[in-house]
Amino acid sequence: MSPSELHSDAIVIDGLIIGKWDRELLEDMRRGGLTAANCTVSVWEDFQSTVDNIVAFNKLMAECSDLVRPVRTTADIRKAKEEGKTGILYGFQNAHAFEDQIGYVEVFKQLGVGIVQLCYNTQNLVGTGCYERDGGLSDFGREIVAEMNRVGVMCDLSHVGAKTSEEVILESKKPVCYSHCLPSGLKEHPRNKSDEALKFIADHGGFVGVTMFAPFLKNGPNSTIDDYVEAIEYIMNIVGEDAIGIGTDFTQGHGPDFFEWLTHDKGYARRLTNFGEVINPQGIRTVGEFPNLTEALLKRGLSEQQVRKIMGENWLRTLADVWGE
Amino acid sequence: MSPSELHSDAIVIDGLIIGKWDRELLEDMRRGGLTAANCTVSVWEDFQSTVDNIVAFNKLMAECSDLVRPVRTTADIRKAKEEGKTGILYGFQNAHAFEDQIGYVEVFKQLGVGIVQLCYNTQNLVGTGCYERDGGLSDFGREIVAEMNRVGVMCDLSHVGAKTSEEVILESKKPVCYSHCLPSGLKEHPRNKSDEALKFIADHGGFVGVTMFAPFLKNGPNSTIDDYVEAIEYIMNIVGEDAIGIGTDFTQGHGPDFFEWLTHDKGYARRLTNFGEVINPQGIRTVGEFPNLTEALLKRGLSEQQVRKIMGENWLRTLADVWGE
Repeated sequence: MSPSELHSDAIVIDGLIIGKWDRELLEDMRRGGLTAANCTVSVWEDFQSTVDNIVAFNKLMAECSDLVRPVRTTADIRKAKEEGKTGILYGFQNAHAFEDQIGYVEVFKQLGVGIVQLCYNTQNLVGTGCYERDGGLSDFGREIVAEMNRVGVMCDLSHVGAKTSEEVILESKKPVCYSHCLPSGLKEHPRNKSDEALKFIADHGGFVGVTMFAPFLKNGPNSTIDDYVEAIEYIMNIVGEDAIGIGTDFTQGHGPDFFEWLTHDKGYARRLTNFGEVINPQGIRTVGEFPNLTEALLKRGLSEQQVRKIMGENWLRTLADVWGE
Repeated sequence: MSPSELHSDAIVIDGLIIGKWDRELLEDMRRGGLTAANCTVSVWEDFQSTVDNIVAFNKLMAECSDLVRPVRTTADIRKAKEEGKTGILYGFQNAHAFEDQIGYVEVFKQLGVGIVQLCYNTQNLVGTGCYERDGGLSDFGREIVAEMNRVGVMCDLSHVGAKTSEEVILESKKPVCYSHCLPSGLKEHPRNKSDEALKFIADHGGFVGVTMFAPFLKNGPNSTIDDYVEAIEYIMNIVGEDAIGIGTDFTQGHGPDFFEWLTHDKGYARRLTNFGEVINPQGIRTVGEFPNLTEALLKRGLSEQQVRKIMGENWLRTLADVWGE
């Protein structure tokens, strides 16, 4: 099977896209051969603004039903594959939208939210993000994790602080993930995960999606798809070939205002970081170039079976487990 | 001057009342000779529910303008004294009502909120309360403290955890307070403050109001006003006679449902504590018995000047300082 044939045949799941949601992007997801993606619908938004985001995305999905379908179960992901569409799974990058209501976890699950990152960079009611001192998982946070376990929403820890992350890994009765991260073994950065942290989540049945976000790659804006593949291999060597997948962190379609909003606490308060110019690695600048990743992984020497696992099968198995299927 | 003449002549300020706000309670505040009180209008409520509480209290104040007047400045407290009314100062027991908006601090200041406790028992966006592990003041919390300093809202730390409290004391450029607390030197309890904590706040220009909430007094429901006076004297011996005042924590008018709400995180989630039956100390069971406190302090051997300071003059001077008058 040629690389492009393999890509077309494989289940391809992107564990994190935070793009500007419009038809153009959904078309590029089809061009990239995505079977499904975890699409961010909340970062700093409160409950109601998040519902509004979901309503807008529902409308877009209805208008683009030739391209996409909603995902509630992994059966929906398999159906998307059969239909030649991309399955849209809603996800949060912050538990902030739950506000102080444990009951909102199930409300959002019913609206299609299957993955929720517990903190985005800073402290919230649940725990603390990776850009400030981290006091760990709060007692309310433990109640939220239990409810996410109960209703079947995956805990994502990518932007969560090290202490909160470790405590969530121990607290959760279902597998948790870093949906989109890179190893600090290749570049030191508050957002990157240490070898110990990667081993810890894998040892506890968790999952790691690897991002290609260039500011966190060692070659920064000069990175290529080979730097991305190097990071994937580095993490696979720690977590094993069954606990690893893709979580690109594509921000496709967004302009500078979006990054200003993203990099300030609550979207407007103090600055937390500054990415500089965000240029995706050469070879995977756009979602449509996704087939190049399959080719680059094969070129690196990974087996067809390993590539299938990394590109989507591992995500599929893990989501089925967390969602209680 | 007899004890009752002194009480009538003195400025009497209660640093914390969380009563059921109705005409009956305002009448009892007059009976007790209160010049002013910090009246709680938010605990677990969000922004809008807190505004609703303020609207309801504004209506009550308009209906009871023969008894009370609003307080925005210490001049309003002096006017209340002249008019024989009780000045109503709005306060929060939780910064939760600020939600994620630094700008809401000034909004509430303009609505009459002059004192805000940063956390109520558990973690919020600012820091952590005294009923769970405390990771300290968050970076957003530092922004909130700076804004409270800027617009003139006093930071209250009564239900705040030890680590967050210490960091707020160091962060704030204006005096902060424990508006209603008791010493753990007389009874060990998560809500009571150690000798070191009391000394620390006083050494940094802060203020301590003493509560008579019986579950935190050594004799519990069998306490009398003399147990309360003992605690006042104990704290005065640590913080000095210029940094101490009254903060009763009267819950007058509330029934069991209110305490259920109060003692669960967010008003409904896990139970944090259980007070058992709440009986105020004999001799100061109701706000109307406030004159007994002046008498008991004198009987304990405190000077008229000390009693005036404790009953209200210290609060008045400290509030003027924090409010930038």
